[in-house]
Amino acid sequence: MTQKPLVGRDTRVCMSLSARPGNFGSRFHNRLYEACGLDFIYKAFSTTDLVAAIGGIRALSIRGCAISMPFKEAVIPLIDELDPSAAAIDSVNTIVNDDGRLVGHNTDYGAVRLLIADIDPATDFVLRGSGGMAKATAAAFRDAGFGKGTLIARNEKAGRELADLYGYDWTPEPTRSAKILINVTPIGMDGGDLAALPFETSAIEQADIVFDVVQYPAETAFLRLARLAGKRVITGADVAVLQAVEQFVLYTGVRPSETQIADAATFARL
Amino acid sequence: MTQKPLVGRDTRVCMSLSARPGNFGSRFHNRLYEACGLDFIYKAFSTTDLVAAIGGIRALSIRGCAISMPFKEAVIPLIDELDPSAAAIDSVNTIVNDDGRLVGHNTDYGAVRLLIADIDPATDFVLRGSGGMAKATAAAFRDAGFGKGTLIARNEKAGRELADLYGYDWTPEPTRSAKILINVTPIGMDGGDLAALPFETSAIEQADIVFDVVQYPAETAFLRLARLAGKRVITGADVAVLQAVEQFVLYTGVRPSETQIADAATFARL
Repeated sequence: MTQKPLVGRDTRVCMSLSARPGNFGSRFHNRLYEACGLDFIYKAFSTTDLVAAIGGIRALSIRGCAISMPFKEAVIPLIDELDPSAAAIDSVNTIVNDDGRLVGHNTDYGAVRLLIADIDPATDFVLRGSGGMAKATAAAFRDAGFGKGTLIARNEKAGRELADLYGYDWTPEPTRSAKILINVTPIGMDGGDLAALPFETSAIEQADIVFDVVQYPAETAFLRLARLAGKRVITGADVAVLQAVEQFVLYTGVRPSETQIADAATFARL
Repeated sequence: MTQKPLVGRDTRVCMSLSARPGNFGSRFHNRLYEACGLDFIYKAFSTTDLVAAIGGIRALSIRGCAISMPFKEAVIPLIDELDPSAAAIDSVNTIVNDDGRLVGHNTDYGAVRLLIADIDPATDFVLRGSGGMAKATAAAFRDAGFGKGTLIARNEKAGRELADLYGYDWTPEPTRSAKILINVTPIGMDGGDLAALPFETSAIEQADIVFDVVQYPAETAFLRLARLAGKRVITGADVAVLQAVEQFVLYTGVRPSETQIADAATFARL
């Protein structure tokens, strides 16, 4: 029997904090630590006391921490520094602990930038949503040079603020179509109405590219319709993997190979 | 290739806090989790901020935490309740987190009780040391009914206080012998003078039982001399294993078999 390596005194710990932890991060990072032969371990945590949890990260020298809903903005006053990726959108999804100095990053932003890098920025888009991930996505489009965009958000205050921040239009209802449709709401997510669509079928028909940040299910009704209609699709799974790779590199200093990433992504989905 | 289980969302975490973590606890507990098929993980931590570390245990719902030097007394005001094993000696070596309520235990005390259970309490002893572990050991002897004991401690205040607490004598120098000799100081420990003896050779010759709580090396010079002289020896490794088993049971509710314990103890020593 081969002896599997066990967590020891020198094992470095990374973790995540969210209200309802999933298993993707744990499986993805732990699989890659193993593949890369790194003495690291990753554990997903939930908390009802963010201040004490961040204090614990400092006190226990936790190397890195993924930050999910609903902590991406609340964590900012608790850390020491913002990387430009997080400062640009006032939203942190990753904390790196450099010898006690907690630096906030946003790897969602970078992941979206990578995924849209080959799209002509003259293309118009509509984006539905107004939360932290909507902010990261809108900022990525803005910084990629996309000039014509409309944000759709029922909440007028949040929607207008976000649209004004990046120089886009705002509308409360998903009536408008565009060549790129982007869903950054939980519509169609596991646990809710799986058949619900963030945009009308007619809007999907008029679009060229459909982008859904929902991670579970891997293919939402929105994405399935778009794929069947021959549209290019960008998925929440794409974002999840790319942003997790960037976290991995920040935490370990090691960039895994494409093969290792693909294996970990498949494993994390099992 | 068999897929080894990875740490996931539902994995429970136990840990340790000490100024200088060893590897015994990590290896022992993780080996037993695996042997018992439990979805637990154990990680040794160091900290310079005990308050924040305990806050982190609460905020992250860490299931249990071993407490070592120098935190065994300092941790008391930070937790919610003392089990009688810890209350009796004002020293906590184990915290169990029961749904947010932190209860302090002392499994060193219970381990010593078990190891001396078959010794006639009319036997006299001398115990050298005055720290937290000395307190646990003296309390175990007192509660086992040992009436004749002398505590040896250079520090008069600590030594007298401890002796008075349990109704034993105090003396500053290790001049006295007895049928049981107990070392609860770091004398002979790895990192110091390995040839140093806590008691004179003549005292060892006059004793029947020699008890050394030093854990590394497994056999101190003191124990080796005693063993070669045909004395019964009780070792720090015995204490370490027994107390860790009690921690394991408190954390998991599962009592491993003797075979599993022996395997984990051997593995933890490798």
